[in-house]
Amino acid sequence: MGDVSGFTEDELLEAVRRVLSGPAPGVVLGPGDDAALVEPGRHLGVLTVDLLVEGVDFDRSSYTARDVGYKAVAVNVSDVAAMGASPRYGLVAVGLPPSVDARWAVELVAGMRAAADEYGLALVGGDLSRASEVTVAVTLTGEVPEGGAVTRAGARPGDRVVVTGALGAAAGGLLLLRAPASSVAAVVASSWARRLVEAQLRPRARVGEGRTLASAGATAMIDVSDGFAKDLSRLCAASGVGAAVRLADLPVAAELGELSRHVPAEPLGLALGGGEDFELLAALPAEGVAKARAVLLERFGTPLADVGEIREGSGLVAIDEDGAERPLEPRGWDHFAG
Amino acid sequence: MGDVSGFTEDELLEAVRRVLSGPAPGVVLGPGDDAALVEPGRHLGVLTVDLLVEGVDFDRSSYTARDVGYKAVAVNVSDVAAMGASPRYGLVAVGLPPSVDARWAVELVAGMRAAADEYGLALVGGDLSRASEVTVAVTLTGEVPEGGAVTRAGARPGDRVVVTGALGAAAGGLLLLRAPASSVAAVVASSWARRLVEAQLRPRARVGEGRTLASAGATAMIDVSDGFAKDLSRLCAASGVGAAVRLADLPVAAELGELSRHVPAEPLGLALGGGEDFELLAALPAEGVAKARAVLLERFGTPLADVGEIREGSGLVAIDEDGAERPLEPRGWDHFAG
Repeated sequence: MGDVSGFTEDELLEAVRRVLSGPAPGVVLGPGDDAALVEPGRHLGVLTVDLLVEGVDFDRSSYTARDVGYKAVAVNVSDVAAMGASPRYGLVAVGLPPSVDARWAVELVAGMRAAADEYGLALVGGDLSRASEVTVAVTLTGEVPEGGAVTRAGARPGDRVVVTGALGAAAGGLLLLRAPASSVAAVVASSWARRLVEAQLRPRARVGEGRTLASAGATAMIDVSDGFAKDLSRLCAASGVGAAVRLADLPVAAELGELSRHVPAEPLGLALGGGEDFELLAALPAEGVAKARAVLLERFGTPLADVGEIREGSGLVAIDEDGAERPLEPRGWDHFAG
Repeated sequence: MGDVSGFTEDELLEAVRRVLSGPAPGVVLGPGDDAALVEPGRHLGVLTVDLLVEGVDFDRSSYTARDVGYKAVAVNVSDVAAMGASPRYGLVAVGLPPSVDARWAVELVAGMRAAADEYGLALVGGDLSRASEVTVAVTLTGEVPEGGAVTRAGARPGDRVVVTGALGAAAGGLLLLRAPASSVAAVVASSWARRLVEAQLRPRARVGEGRTLASAGATAMIDVSDGFAKDLSRLCAASGVGAAVRLADLPVAAELGELSRHVPAEPLGLALGGGEDFELLAALPAEGVAKARAVLLERFGTPLADVGEIREGSGLVAIDEDGAERPLEPRGWDHFAG
């Protein structure tokens, strides 16, 4: 198979279209025309876009084309999940450098399709162009019943701060991928190391969990994309509140203990600032926590940790094991940090 | 104002959000949360995405930031128009190189906003990242009444081939922008030259015209983004038909005659293959042409040219002034052509 420059745009678009979704519920007209046509939704529409750029969000030495495609969709699904909503349709814009061959491009779209199938959404359109690096913008639409959406803005003092799953695994996986091969050769095949790498390459969006937390009365919700502390600070800023986090209760990914014996890594720091966990972070009235936890475990096998409380005022504090409080810096991933 | 690297992502996102749409009909929650929320539409949903990349689709020496933003939205609106639909909501994903300062980024979004206001759509979300070159992906949603959408696939033998406005002006403008300054210094301020440059930098989408053509019974429609011949060949391929085009009837932009006296330019070639005109090209039953032409002129001041007919079979032919037919090559813009 030739490189992309050897394909006409129409030929490559046709190859890509074959991999995009076929007939799907609600899709009146799929990829290939000026625009796609979909049936009107009965609920509120949800719209979100995320841009992934090679060298910033991923690199081709660690990520396969399928990984990139899968993740580009999954991180968007996570945004929909963080509204308490369900994804419906997706559109993908892909910029490809000359160094990418057509097989890579089709594998990229296959990864998108795999994620779309997993999360029950249809990819209904796309666009391709040349670019200096692989660039993927995914736009998703979703639906949420009127009154069922959870924004970042409703947290109230006294609400509990809860988070699904475990934190820091994706950042741990990135450390493993970036470590000198010689230093991690002995461990990369171990199950804990593979779980960390999987968390980085194939993050899971928490769609059912988001709907469950919305039903349980979550007053505010955000997905942990840029780091627990940074995303909590965003939720608090949007809600006009502060928060206190009990560090001992943070669900630090268990694999990070193993990791720290092989590469320089500080588990608590990775859990607080690592980013890309795509867990859901919510404010939840105290009376809803036990029920939500039980439902999440039963339906999805997903733990829910109660890690602190929403407070009046602003700013984050961390509470250590002795009960001492200190400011919690909202450090995390910043696309433009120098 | 510092460069983008001097801004945190949150600061730049906040600046961008202020320029994105404020309250707008149907928008329940605008930019700034994990996703936007919009009221469900009553009609079929329309979804489309376009990717513009610096060095491929524009360059910063000719385009201002506002031009880039305006065009990125307008070319998407054109796709919606080509379905006979109306745009509703937009999402923008922007990749920015370190050489771009924050003022440029905000101006880019201001150009998007100007186009959004002009076409009556609301920009409800966005994402920013670093990139090697300015990269802009715009996704639009729109609406079209059930049964009112016009795809590329319905053209029937005997239908007339019609096209709005004039062809080749945008390509002529590009020639002017790329010509050595010394060769065009005497003419760039003339009104014909400015109209050509405007056609390239600030293309107009034909939304009202698209709805009019749909109402007039258009059986297939496409916007002229990659060149008249290439886009006609796409419409014909999707419809399983061929077409014959009478070259003398093509609405070649009048300014191209002037242009050809100053730079090497072949008006008919630019009209057939130039691309980026964003005029609407449709197949229309003969009995609908006169009425559609009258309505388009009266409501929008837009001419409609009857340039040929849909035929059985496949392939395009050009008919010259003597009535002789020869194959019409579907040449045009190709993002991956070597």
